[in-house]
Amino acid sequence: MTVYVVQIWVKTGHEADFIKACEKNHLETRKEPGNLRFDLLQSQENPGIFTLYEVYRNDDAVLAHKETQHYALWRETVEPWMAKKRQGNKFSSCLPRDESHW
Amino acid sequence: MTVYVVQIWVKTGHEADFIKACEKNHLETRKEPGNLRFDLLQSQENPGIFTLYEVYRNDDAVLAHKETQHYALWRETVEPWMAKKRQGNKFSSCLPRDESHW
Repeated sequence: MTVYVVQIWVKTGHEADFIKACEKNHLETRKEPGNLRFDLLQSQENPGIFTLYEVYRNDDAVLAHKETQHYALWRETVEPWMAKKRQGNKFSSCLPRDESHW
Repeated sequence: MTVYVVQIWVKTGHEADFIKACEKNHLETRKEPGNLRFDLLQSQENPGIFTLYEVYRNDDAVLAHKETQHYALWRETVEPWMAKKRQGNKFSSCLPRDESHW
């Protein structure tokens, strides 16, 4: 599995807009055959900090996601609300070992 | 949902030991009634960097986890392999909205 953990900093006052834009992207991304999770989290300490937890079957599924219309629309929509450049880190899954648990 | 995203830096040469110790903790934690996920990820850029993605139904479930023997054993086991202090951030879930999707 290929997993991206993305930290996102949203300008104050645009948190609800951001969540709404992510929901459209979340619903469409979850329909992609190579996507397994697309969780959005909001920091309890600082509500302007979000994390996206994106799980794909492999790198090809990541590339397929980046070519979708919903991804392009999400990027364009949220851009004005970014307090700074988002930071994504790419991981391989260790646990759970069983693919059916993802 | 209460979600912890924990960054962990492991000393070179102890990556496999660390994964093994996490697997025991993972299997026991997943049996806790308040736990929904306990994923371990390894950075593709730097294999000494790991992320734990821990999802609990609520704060009480987090407290219950911290009182378990498997958590105490994990902490004690991995301590000598830590390159630096681990860094955990606490989040609330935004998406998926439907609890049954966690």
